[in-house]
Amino acid sequence: MLVLTQGDPSGIGPEITARSWHALHASGPAFAWIGDPALLAAHAPVQPIHDLAQAGAVFSNAVPVLPLPLAAPAVPGQPDKRNAPGILHSIRMAVELALAGQARAVVTNPISKDVVQSADFTHPGHTSYLAELCGVPGQDVMMLAGPSLRVVPVTVHVALRRALDQLSTDLIVRTARTVARGLARDFGLRTPPRLAVAGLNPHAGEGGLMGREELDIIIPAIEILKAEGLDVSGPLPADTMFTPQARSRYDAALCMYHDQALIPIKTLEMDQGVNVTLGLPIIRTSPDHGTAFDIAGQGKADPASLCAALRLAAHLADNRQAQAQN
Amino acid sequence: MLVLTQGDPSGIGPEITARSWHALHASGPAFAWIGDPALLAAHAPVQPIHDLAQAGAVFSNAVPVLPLPLAAPAVPGQPDKRNAPGILHSIRMAVELALAGQARAVVTNPISKDVVQSADFTHPGHTSYLAELCGVPGQDVMMLAGPSLRVVPVTVHVALRRALDQLSTDLIVRTARTVARGLARDFGLRTPPRLAVAGLNPHAGEGGLMGREELDIIIPAIEILKAEGLDVSGPLPADTMFTPQARSRYDAALCMYHDQALIPIKTLEMDQGVNVTLGLPIIRTSPDHGTAFDIAGQGKADPASLCAALRLAAHLADNRQAQAQN
Repeated sequence: MLVLTQGDPSGIGPEITARSWHALHASGPAFAWIGDPALLAAHAPVQPIHDLAQAGAVFSNAVPVLPLPLAAPAVPGQPDKRNAPGILHSIRMAVELALAGQARAVVTNPISKDVVQSADFTHPGHTSYLAELCGVPGQDVMMLAGPSLRVVPVTVHVALRRALDQLSTDLIVRTARTVARGLARDFGLRTPPRLAVAGLNPHAGEGGLMGREELDIIIPAIEILKAEGLDVSGPLPADTMFTPQARSRYDAALCMYHDQALIPIKTLEMDQGVNVTLGLPIIRTSPDHGTAFDIAGQGKADPASLCAALRLAAHLADNRQAQAQN
Repeated sequence: MLVLTQGDPSGIGPEITARSWHALHASGPAFAWIGDPALLAAHAPVQPIHDLAQAGAVFSNAVPVLPLPLAAPAVPGQPDKRNAPGILHSIRMAVELALAGQARAVVTNPISKDVVQSADFTHPGHTSYLAELCGVPGQDVMMLAGPSLRVVPVTVHVALRRALDQLSTDLIVRTARTVARGLARDFGLRTPPRLAVAGLNPHAGEGGLMGREELDIIIPAIEILKAEGLDVSGPLPADTMFTPQARSRYDAALCMYHDQALIPIKTLEMDQGVNVTLGLPIIRTSPDHGTAFDIAGQGKADPASLCAALRLAAHLADNRQAQAQN
């Protein structure tokens, strides 16, 4: 059974959850929702449960819900900080169920940093909170996975100038190891998986003519990884590494900064991209979009990315289980 | 009549020129080549001419060539610096013919910086040389144009760190003005054309949370441009501005650095992208690839981008002529 967190109750989470249930209730994968049942009731049949083991029998007829009543009424488009503890509680419960082996994977609905940020919660976002809850702070690696491309930004939600300062051989090496492990264990790919490392500068620096980071930081990282037996190519000029032909040569692209990774996948895969967190003991996916307060409650929200996140979580859980049995 | 430069004789220029003639000789647009006739003779019928006015009558039967004999034999894949003066001579002749109004546009075959670089030629590339030959040094703006996307990198062939240092309100404003003029005059678009300006940082900085360049540099530029009556939107998060829906809202995207512009167009348009130089008194296009010494002479080179460059040059020349007659 997959567990799906509530996310921000004033965002599009409730409606895309209900729509995902409509899309998946006949075929699966099955999921249970952790949140206030009333949020879903307008959009889909709901069945409160008290134990995740009950969810399987419920799913084809209603959304199984582990109930977590809201502190304040949820008005679509109007986030309310009084609901922050409930938002975080839903995430903690999901992680506990996965760590205990009761849930196969955690799928998270979008939250807003502004809403949950407080003295008790100072994480830059969802993912580092999950890493802390899992007891592996700082080990989380973000991957965006779509039907024809997987990308990993080595530096993530920081100003571009700061990303350049953060980039290091060690960071690339650690990230690549986590990606290689994740791909081999959960994605059912051949071992070792093929990693392509992007250059930082135009034309990957042209041998130092346009920047030295390739020579000083990236190539040394690639050499370390190759010496460990990993299948790593690069540094590749970022502009030509996302054509269909180039993509066929690797299983994941390691990118040096946020937009270098996110531009190609969002341009190519649009609503099919799924956010996968590697480096955790549990499997976690999420849709590749935010709370979308601006369209919440208007019936416009597209459940495609959440459906893809649920399907990918189930696929990864199947692969991990098969690996464990080998 | 379009004029097409020789480019590096040891690169793929000769073979893609011959293939482009085969693709275009029946339907046009017609072009004349400025180079050594022997380079083409193995691949296509060739007819030397001594005046560009003769080219029109020749084109359907043979490639019209304004002859420029090579200084050294051209071996595919083995560039020879002795041919550098001839490579540059071909470019100068093409520009002179265009400035004199004899040629409608200049299309350039790829050259290699390493080959032409010398005490006499210190330009970073083709384009700044053309700007100098046209008497407008520093006014050139590079645009990549494909069937569904036009992008302009505001900073171009410099290390990413240096691009961040070069970025200024003034540079964005000057570039946007040149792009708006070029789109209105040569692309046959409604006036004013719609320009979308990318942010520099992830999520366009999120109001200063991830970098201040949007607030300090980019938004002030957009305000100046809007005050001049231009139709400018942004700063837009770069990762979501290249989806089909987002692309339908603008005629060209102004990007802050090389890969921000080149990743989406090369990922989407692959071999259909054309390099257009705006800001010159003449029309100039070129294929969006280099000399490809590694595959030269092997019959593998794809003429698609050169054909697209020839077609677009003719289209731009038609529009400019129509505008001038209005």
